[in-house]
Amino acid sequence: MRKLYAIGIGAGDPEHLTVQAVDRLNRVDVFFVLDKGEEKADLVRLRKEILDRFVTRPGYRVVLVEDPPRDRTPQDYRAAVADWHAARAEAYEQAIVSSLSADEVGAFLVWGDPSLYDSTIALIEAVLARGKVSFEYEVVPGISSISALVARHRTTMNQIGRAVQLTTGRRLAEGWPEGVDDVFVLLDAHTTFDRFTSQGLTIFWGAYVGTPDEILMSGPLTPALAAEIRRVRTEARERHGWIMDTYLLRRPA
Amino acid sequence: MRKLYAIGIGAGDPEHLTVQAVDRLNRVDVFFVLDKGEEKADLVRLRKEILDRFVTRPGYRVVLVEDPPRDRTPQDYRAAVADWHAARAEAYEQAIVSSLSADEVGAFLVWGDPSLYDSTIALIEAVLARGKVSFEYEVVPGISSISALVARHRTTMNQIGRAVQLTTGRRLAEGWPEGVDDVFVLLDAHTTFDRFTSQGLTIFWGAYVGTPDEILMSGPLTPALAAEIRRVRTEARERHGWIMDTYLLRRPA
Ligand SMILES: C[S@@+](CC[C@H](N)C(=O)[O-])C[C@H]1O[C@@H](n2cnc3c(N)ncnc32)[C@H](O)[C@@H]1O
Ligand SMILES: C[S@@+](CC[C@H](N)C(=O)[O-])C[C@H]1O[C@@H](n2cnc3c(N)ncnc32)[C@H](O)[C@@H]1O
Repeated sequence: MRKLYAIGIGAGDPEHLTVQAVDRLNRVDVFFVLDKGEEKADLVRLRKEILDRFVTRPGYRVVLVEDPPRDRTPQDYRAAVADWHAARAEAYEQAIVSSLSADEVGAFLVWGDPSLYDSTIALIEAVLARGKVSFEYEVVPGISSISALVARHRTTMNQIGRAVQLTTGRRLAEGWPEGVDDVFVLLDAHTTFDRFTSQGLTIFWGAYVGTPDEILMSGPLTPALAAEIRRVRTEARERHGWIMDTYLLRRPA
Repeated sequence: MRKLYAIGIGAGDPEHLTVQAVDRLNRVDVFFVLDKGEEKADLVRLRKEILDRFVTRPGYRVVLVEDPPRDRTPQDYRAAVADWHAARAEAYEQAIVSSLSADEVGAFLVWGDPSLYDSTIALIEAVLARGKVSFEYEVVPGISSISALVARHRTTMNQIGRAVQLTTGRRLAEGWPEGVDDVFVLLDAHTTFDRFTSQGLTIFWGAYVGTPDEILMSGPLTPALAAEIRRVRTEARERHGWIMDTYLLRRPA
């Protein structure tokens, strides 16, 4: 029986790999890597660094899977994502069938924690649901970007006994969520925190968290601080050609 | 300058320690361990197992800090927690002053991720705020119980593009949170999921996740499944003398 691992590799710091992840990396025959094109070359490099550093077992292969094109400005967001997942499932099925023999072990290296705003688990389930290839699979949890963010800021996710929300920039734009005091925002291309200045909130922001390029900023969310984060963010994105940032907005309970 | 680490050790599986955590463990002169009394002896044992397995540097010391008594049924929950934190800060300050010399490194081993429903970071800040002892400190993130839970169930925290809530049993008892489809519940001594049967939810439940005693149950949250989880939970708690369980309630988006 083929076996697949979805291995969380942390969100930028190779030292965030777990002992379990390092163990599983060393059982893998084929690493499937999504080829997302030039702009994320830094991330491909980090994956390579992880393999070079932690895999002691010789002879593994790396198979690039070309990411199907994606409509970034769709009319119907959910339908576009579903189409794109179907095309990806087909691409992976193809890669598994042609590159992994029946008794081999394959792996996906998943950024951060595979459970958080990542499609790998859904993708694996979609490949299985197509019914053309069968395999066992295991999920290896990883340190997420938000866990890394709060560790670097030496703060917590929750205030004592209070609730926490994890959400996207798109959803935060609809307004402050009901009944929570701490809101983590991922996938925000539009610095949505800008809409929440002068409301007594504190922001803990980070870009490239865990990498040598890490930038951390925090403080009471005044218009001045929001503008400063925007400025730093734009400048960093231009310099790197891409950015990954996330933040916690805290309302003192 | 004294240095302290708050090291996330995962929520039960020693293999969930990160490479960073293992590195930091091996720089530590004194491990401060909270002595919570008999019932959690299994947890103390797991911490010892982690030191035995991962620390190769000889000569470290383990200092037990007695946990101050805590009012478990207070009139004013937040005030009682604050009092208890103050008593703990004093106990830790005392332990640091008397056990850690000026150039030494101390550490707290924190269950799961130090950022999630844990008081260690607040405690360290409280010790610093008292101003009687000074030190640098670093937080090392860990795999949380909820990250371990979803990995074992091979599911995700969020549905595509949707929000997630992390909350306590006490808060869930106030009703389903607004605007979220996935709710993680920690610190629930009262199987609060019971109030949410027959509402089209799915539950992913786990106890002792990551340990050899792990129990996982999942499925549509019918009254029958809720009763079965209650039964299994009661039986396990009686057998072990304690239980740690957590769950995800999912409303299909
Ligand atoms: C597709 S999601 C994947 C999240 C990932 N599974 C995790 O556990 O962090 C990508 C988003 O995660 C956040 N992110 C990932 N890595 C990051 C990093 N190193 N620094 C800051 N934000 C990061 C950003 O908000 C980014 O838009
Ligand atoms: C004080 S909180 C600490 C949480 C911890 N910092 C974390 O990251 O998981 C304790 C709660 O975490 C959950 N928990 C911790 N370890 C667990 C485990 N191994 N299995 C299931 N639940 C666990 C339970 O809900 C428990 O009541």
